[in-house]
Amino acid sequence: ITGNVLAADIEVKPRGRLHLDAGFYNDDQTTFGNGVNVRRGRMGLQGTISPDWRFVIEYDFAEGGDASAADVNLRTKLAGGTVTIGHQRVPFSLNTLTSSNSITFMERSSASTVITPDRKLGVRFDKTFGNITSESMAFGRTMNTESDAGKDDSMGLAQRLVYHPKVDDVQYHLGAAVVYQDLGDYNTLRLRDRPELRIDPAIRLIDTGTLNEVDSLTRAGLEFAAIKGVWSVEAELLSLQTSSAIQDVSFSGYHMQVSYVVTGESRSYKNGLFSGIKPSSASGAIEVAARYSVTDLNDGAVFGGEQKNLTLGLNYYMNSNIRFMGNIVFSDIDTSSAVSEEPIGFGIRAQYNF
Amino acid sequence: ITGNVLAADIEVKPRGRLHLDAGFYNDDQTTFGNGVNVRRGRMGLQGTISPDWRFVIEYDFAEGGDASAADVNLRTKLAGGTVTIGHQRVPFSLNTLTSSNSITFMERSSASTVITPDRKLGVRFDKTFGNITSESMAFGRTMNTESDAGKDDSMGLAQRLVYHPKVDDVQYHLGAAVVYQDLGDYNTLRLRDRPELRIDPAIRLIDTGTLNEVDSLTRAGLEFAAIKGVWSVEAELLSLQTSSAIQDVSFSGYHMQVSYVVTGESRSYKNGLFSGIKPSSASGAIEVAARYSVTDLNDGAVFGGEQKNLTLGLNYYMNSNIRFMGNIVFSDIDTSSAVSEEPIGFGIRAQYNF
Amino acid sequence: ITGNVLAADIEVKPRGRLHLDAGFYNDDQTTFGNGVNVRRGRMGLQGTISPDWRFVIEYDFAEGGDASAADVNLRTKLAGGTVTIGHQRVPFSLNTLTSSNSITFMERSSASTVITPDRKLGVRFDKTFGNITSESMAFGRTMNTESDAGKDDSMGLAQRLVYHPKVDDVQYHLGAAVVYQDLGDYNTLRLRDRPELRIDPAIRLIDTGTLNEVDSLTRAGLEFAAIKGVWSVEAELLSLQTSSAIQDVSFSGYHMQVSYVVTGESRSYKNGLFSGIKPSSASGAIEVAARYSVTDLNDGAVFGGEQKNLTLGLNYYMNSNIRFMGNIVFSDIDTSSAVSEEPIGFGIRAQYNF
Repeated sequence: ITGNVLAADIEVKPRGRLHLDAGFYNDDQTTFGNGVNVRRGRMGLQGTISPDWRFVIEYDFAEGGDASAADVNLRTKLAGGTVTIGHQRVPFSLNTLTSSNSITFMERSSASTVITPDRKLGVRFDKTFGNITSESMAFGRTMNTESDAGKDDSMGLAQRLVYHPKVDDVQYHLGAAVVYQDLGDYNTLRLRDRPELRIDPAIRLIDTGTLNEVDSLTRAGLEFAAIKGVWSVEAELLSLQTSSAIQDVSFSGYHMQVSYVVTGESRSYKNGLFSGIKPSSASGAIEVAARYSVTDLNDGAVFGGEQKNLTLGLNYYMNSNIRFMGNIVFSDIDTSSAVSEEPIGFGIRAQYNF
Repeated sequence: ITGNVLAADIEVKPRGRLHLDAGFYNDDQTTFGNGVNVRRGRMGLQGTISPDWRFVIEYDFAEGGDASAADVNLRTKLAGGTVTIGHQRVPFSLNTLTSSNSITFMERSSASTVITPDRKLGVRFDKTFGNITSESMAFGRTMNTESDAGKDDSMGLAQRLVYHPKVDDVQYHLGAAVVYQDLGDYNTLRLRDRPELRIDPAIRLIDTGTLNEVDSLTRAGLEFAAIKGVWSVEAELLSLQTSSAIQDVSFSGYHMQVSYVVTGESRSYKNGLFSGIKPSSASGAIEVAARYSVTDLNDGAVFGGEQKNLTLGLNYYMNSNIRFMGNIVFSDIDTSSAVSEEPIGFGIRAQYNF
Repeated sequence: ITGNVLAADIEVKPRGRLHLDAGFYNDDQTTFGNGVNVRRGRMGLQGTISPDWRFVIEYDFAEGGDASAADVNLRTKLAGGTVTIGHQRVPFSLNTLTSSNSITFMERSSASTVITPDRKLGVRFDKTFGNITSESMAFGRTMNTESDAGKDDSMGLAQRLVYHPKVDDVQYHLGAAVVYQDLGDYNTLRLRDRPELRIDPAIRLIDTGTLNEVDSLTRAGLEFAAIKGVWSVEAELLSLQTSSAIQDVSFSGYHMQVSYVVTGESRSYKNGLFSGIKPSSASGAIEVAARYSVTDLNDGAVFGGEQKNLTLGLNYYMNSNIRFMGNIVFSDIDTSSAVSEEPIGFGIRAQYNF
């Protein structure tokens, strides 16, 4: 109560989201667990301090009692762009940068999940010049780990450039991004993933295991997307290269997807970023979509496996804030245990965000 | 900050509650710890999305740093009733379904605490037909545990029926409920409880220990209540039966209580649910109450003990949102260690909710 | 959603704060970790229930996923003063009682950090009589630990008195406080601290280790401060004395600081408490400050070390809610490992609060 009287020029609004999943698997070799899962359960606050500064602080409490920080930062305008200080996405991967409220499928593409860095503490500068958007960031560690005594944090630099012309009635998106990350005194790396569904959040069939003595990482990404009315396509190719005292290795992946909005709406897009579909009628909007993704975690002496997924999706947008989703994921996996298997996952999601 | 601008038809309101306890014990054999305890310390957000959808997301952070999910769900109207999707109470036990802001004593009856399932992820449909209210739910696991790799979640079905006629100036409540729960791949059960006071939250003198190879649980409950002006009575009988590869066992308990509002108000009641007492004057409302409860965790080869409690309570309702409570709990316990003892607990609570 | 409709006489407002640090160390013997750290990341709710009652519930989620309770309490007016029930600061140490949003340096003085009790659950009564403010509290344990089975909580009493006359244009502050704490069944004590910077939150070079069989603690503090326009000075001397079955020991520390507001504003002060600097122009306010602190954890058979810090600080107040800070901390430490070393810490902070 002390010292927190809101001044007249502050506006605070709550925000949050719930993503609630249920589903089951058609197992091949590995037994997956069926049932329900709360994928995201976030609460936060956002607002403006004087006209020029915007803040957000949001945590996710869905996973077993621990708070996990989402966006926790402060933003202002600078030199025609925006500067954001704090915990936020590193500008890399169109699929990762799309809000989880607006992604086309229940999970992001496996390549994007594995190769993209998580949110980091840092300073980011975004600016749009006509059809070109530039996003630059200097970053340290994520907020969701604690520092060990005496260890220097990892540090990195990221740059993403997007060219997004609108030609006739087609919105194009051509992007390229690179992230260099010096791992400081945290010299390990582990890449692994689930088969693009988290009904069983614990089973990951591709997994590099822990790689030691890794000094730095270089990630690179190429993005393409196009929107023409009810149709949209999206593709990206991502890679990660290690610099290590033991052995330099490199992993990569990509996805391609197409979506069609049956009820006539378009996917929203602005300055290098997709947002969701806003139903134009009170009866909501329906979208069908398909995605193919490949993630390859084999290189040199590392056998992390390879995962190929074909996902079919059906989305019902009740309004701008409530969505129901259904996904079927056909996987073809060479696991890190050198088993070849083809499980099928079935999932549905109810979500709201505000 | 991205993509979360509130549309005009969304209303969000914060909610929360603090239940702060202090007290001590008159020990018999076991030494209880005296002092203070934060029983609940919740923050949440709730609101409406378009006129038809209501959401709530609330967590409790009182217990040692972990977030514990309370109601986290989405609700809409359907076929003259309401459908609720997400984390919520299973429709079972009048005492459990009464909000912790409105329960008559500091803790729910031991029988209700032990036998009622905790909140689960699921879909619930409630509908009132005149004097009859029906509540049905299909549910999976609770949100407050994490799934183990490869294990199927438990799943269940619940049905509660309440007949609640008002005859002359007496509101009657006659309820029956049954819950069937297939434990999936989580085949253990442990029932245990404290002596209806949590000043020492760690000591539970009745305890079945962990029962293994349990396949499914069937719970049944009978509820009775009546309100006539300043008087109310409430009773329920609950039982739980296991289906197990080892040995089927069955546990049960009941409570009976009476409350009298000295200042003339009535306990609020609607469609199968009690809510609190709303003071009719600015000087607040005073309630006195007594409860007797029995919980029997002995059956077959399981000796979990038996607990009988007599609780005397005095409540002061400052207004609809602030309450002070005092409880004395006289226990008569055959503990799971086969000791017979009669501790007495003394507790007070300050609570607010908004 | 059930039973939480806000009545007309309740007002709820969100509150929160983010303190985001970055920095590095010039190491001497010990290697410190460089990088970034989220010092505080809080979300909370506060408001009024009827005109007379104020509540607050706030948690910090910055540290590795655990919720840590800040102020969680209920306040009303009584006999010309205020009564606060719940989790709150114990009235001891001017530096500790100053909000972290308003402290002059990135960290409180080491003496204050080490010797002051953390927030406790209890009842506090504050009253101002003209130039004298009295703060009294009876308290139990903190909310951020859990009780062990069968153990009595610690309990204590605190009294702080402040004489705060304004003579001509000088605001004086003379304070004295004492805290007696019976440790109940939690009979250990450990005092330790970092060198007034938490870029590396894990390294503490002064550390008494765990002292056992401690029965009770008596803390005493003397406070002095004065504000004359743009200048302010602040000093306090704190001590802690144990009563132990093994050996009574006593530790102490002090700090002295001076601050100068370059842009002409004054530090705010009222009834025994500093609050922040409110810029008088849209271009913000600038403050420079210096502090010297000594913390002595050596006594009897305990060799916890001694830490002397000289801190230079530069603060830029963008407005009442956004601040940027820079600190250089020159340390001179006889560590608990009997090493003498002189590390230098460099830190910057971006903070907002609302």
